[in-house]
Amino acid sequence: MSLYVQKFGGTSVGSIERIEHVADMVKASRDQGNNLVIVVSAMSGETNRLIDLAREISPRPLPRELDVLLATGEQVTIALLAIALEKRGCPARSYTGGQVAVRTDSAHGKARIQDIDRERVDRDLAAGRVVIVAGFQGVDAENNITTLGRGGSDTSAVALAAALKADECQIFTDVDGVYTSDPRVVPRARRLERITFEEILELASLGAKVLQIRAVEFAGKYNVPLRVLSSFHENPGTLITYEEPEMEDALISGIAFNRDEAQITVAGVPDQPGVAFRILGAVADENIEVDMIVQNVAEDGTADFTFTVHRNDFDRTLEVVERVCAELGADKVEGDHGIVKISLVGVGMRSHAGIASRMFEALAAEGINIQMISTSEIKISVVVQEKYLELAVRALHSAFGLDGPAEPVGQSASLEE
Amino acid sequence: MSLYVQKFGGTSVGSIERIEHVADMVKASRDQGNNLVIVVSAMSGETNRLIDLAREISPRPLPRELDVLLATGEQVTIALLAIALEKRGCPARSYTGGQVAVRTDSAHGKARIQDIDRERVDRDLAAGRVVIVAGFQGVDAENNITTLGRGGSDTSAVALAAALKADECQIFTDVDGVYTSDPRVVPRARRLERITFEEILELASLGAKVLQIRAVEFAGKYNVPLRVLSSFHENPGTLITYEEPEMEDALISGIAFNRDEAQITVAGVPDQPGVAFRILGAVADENIEVDMIVQNVAEDGTADFTFTVHRNDFDRTLEVVERVCAELGADKVEGDHGIVKISLVGVGMRSHAGIASRMFEALAAEGINIQMISTSEIKISVVVQEKYLELAVRALHSAFGLDGPAEPVGQSASLEE
Repeated sequence: MSLYVQKFGGTSVGSIERIEHVADMVKASRDQGNNLVIVVSAMSGETNRLIDLAREISPRPLPRELDVLLATGEQVTIALLAIALEKRGCPARSYTGGQVAVRTDSAHGKARIQDIDRERVDRDLAAGRVVIVAGFQGVDAENNITTLGRGGSDTSAVALAAALKADECQIFTDVDGVYTSDPRVVPRARRLERITFEEILELASLGAKVLQIRAVEFAGKYNVPLRVLSSFHENPGTLITYEEPEMEDALISGIAFNRDEAQITVAGVPDQPGVAFRILGAVADENIEVDMIVQNVAEDGTADFTFTVHRNDFDRTLEVVERVCAELGADKVEGDHGIVKISLVGVGMRSHAGIASRMFEALAAEGINIQMISTSEIKISVVVQEKYLELAVRALHSAFGLDGPAEPVGQSASLEE
Repeated sequence: MSLYVQKFGGTSVGSIERIEHVADMVKASRDQGNNLVIVVSAMSGETNRLIDLAREISPRPLPRELDVLLATGEQVTIALLAIALEKRGCPARSYTGGQVAVRTDSAHGKARIQDIDRERVDRDLAAGRVVIVAGFQGVDAENNITTLGRGGSDTSAVALAAALKADECQIFTDVDGVYTSDPRVVPRARRLERITFEEILELASLGAKVLQIRAVEFAGKYNVPLRVLSSFHENPGTLITYEEPEMEDALISGIAFNRDEAQITVAGVPDQPGVAFRILGAVADENIEVDMIVQNVAEDGTADFTFTVHRNDFDRTLEVVERVCAELGADKVEGDHGIVKISLVGVGMRSHAGIASRMFEALAAEGINIQMISTSEIKISVVVQEKYLELAVRALHSAFGLDGPAEPVGQSASLEE
């Protein structure tokens, strides 16, 4: 008998009809002999409705009271799902975060789970009940209601799975798994059967919306097998574990891209200590986040220094950098906001040389110029002109043997930010 | 420094605008130096919205889960009120029933309060905070969420006032107090400054909607001074205590009436034991509630037996009684659904003979025939033809010196069902 923690997000429980559908799915899984703990979010739109009510009163509602307010969203869903399950002859009990003792710190609105008391859940499971838990919420040491922040229901599910040593934590969502790339850009993108925690973190940080990063980190830390699957399509989704792919598996798991960056290059800066800091320190002082950073030395003892920022910060960054570079005596500052970052991710590349060269070869074959390169242990990112995005991603998708059948089935996880 | 528990019902917190108004009132009372515990209901309409959601799934939602669902209604209000108070620079903390440990039995949907732990409330009051508590809800010994049933917020407020030994429990509502009669029928009805627990219970059982009977009983049991006042008009409302009126006060506190009854008379039943039971037993078997019952013996050894039921049950009752009376050999069965019950209520009548005769005199002077009479220690009820309602109530209101100035001020408590 397996124990699964299944999490259904706001869209999956967005209406009475959908809640009934979730109840059907849970019942079916229960009838297969599984022990089930269900974690649900607020019905889609509900959290925003509640926030709007609070904002009508105060632009800055007290975080403690906002948590009391928002926690009602999930509480509505757990009750409705329990009612729907009982209607199907499937005994169920619903619990708020506080009732199953999801203990958190006191950081209202972004609390972190510290402990879960499994005693009550165990008792219900032993009695043959489905246990339904409100995601996104807990209580602090003083029994004040806390929330974990947006997407916190994923974290609730993973934390419960860890506390209960569940066989799998299954995240049901409106996509049916993690894809090799964005099917809107790569028609032959295919769903991955499995992927490692490291890979999904690299993909997620590049913009995959499938899972909350915090939940994945939590699952990785406690080694909870995590499965992403669709509440609308029947297929096994994608399993995220520590297990690395077999030898015959692809070296690359997925290709992500990000259209939201802009590139700034400072040419001819003196190649001496502290220069990078002078430039980036000034940028950081403006609260601008920097993503890729590349520097290489020219023959004349000066360096070219290039970095990327969010496109929305482009103009502001350019101003700051031009001011600093005048002081540094740099040759010139150039900006380019028509770029895209493309990243290959795969734990397989760790043990295989030649991934980078195969990547550059595939891009060169299409006549695509690379403006920046940055590598990490399981990722290679390049910056190219945005107009090459589709061409580049499809070429790489083929070159690394990721292509599936011509027509991908079902909905997909967007890997785009 | 006085400690007040103030309760605001659904209409008083029915919109963000009204919640802001309640916050103004609470702030003003706080600024006068009072310690305050505020009990609120769900925003008007919210409880019905939640019940409709549950009923969309199941005609008979599980009581335990319905309580989890409904408890969110008050939780939304407490958070919003706390936010509104903090905006006014008035420190506040909101708590669910479970958080301030309102312990109840496990009768979901109609739970009874057993105990309240005052420790947390005391701590906040000592720190100068306004404490806001979700009415209508508690938790059982197993920490399951329970609700007290409709109107339970009044009971929550009284129970808190009893536990905290508050100076007064103030019930803010959309009427400004208890009136000597219904001003829609008696233009010169006036607000009572005070009334006893016994009187309000007799008036409430006749249909006053001002307060929940359970809350009044609770207040009476623990001797909590209870004040009904308006959240829209500034006046001291009506205080409900054990204190009886002074000698110079009126003998009668109020005149209630009920248009929803119908009368059934069985004439010429054998005057022997068991007859009343045969008739009313058959009525009770149909789950029909009986209100007034009157029997008197005729000279020929038979009796006339008369009782009243709700008008909706009139036809059904007539059928049942006709069947039973055929078996009993009664002369005839007569029904009348064009009647009204009028009741004088007052602890003053306990020590004064002649109230009944003065009542009958006043009615006779207007040519009004009395069809039934029933008396209790602090109440006399008569049944008359419905067409005489206004005439009878106004005549009695004058006869017992209840008339106020010609134009009553403010809104009034309806004493009609």
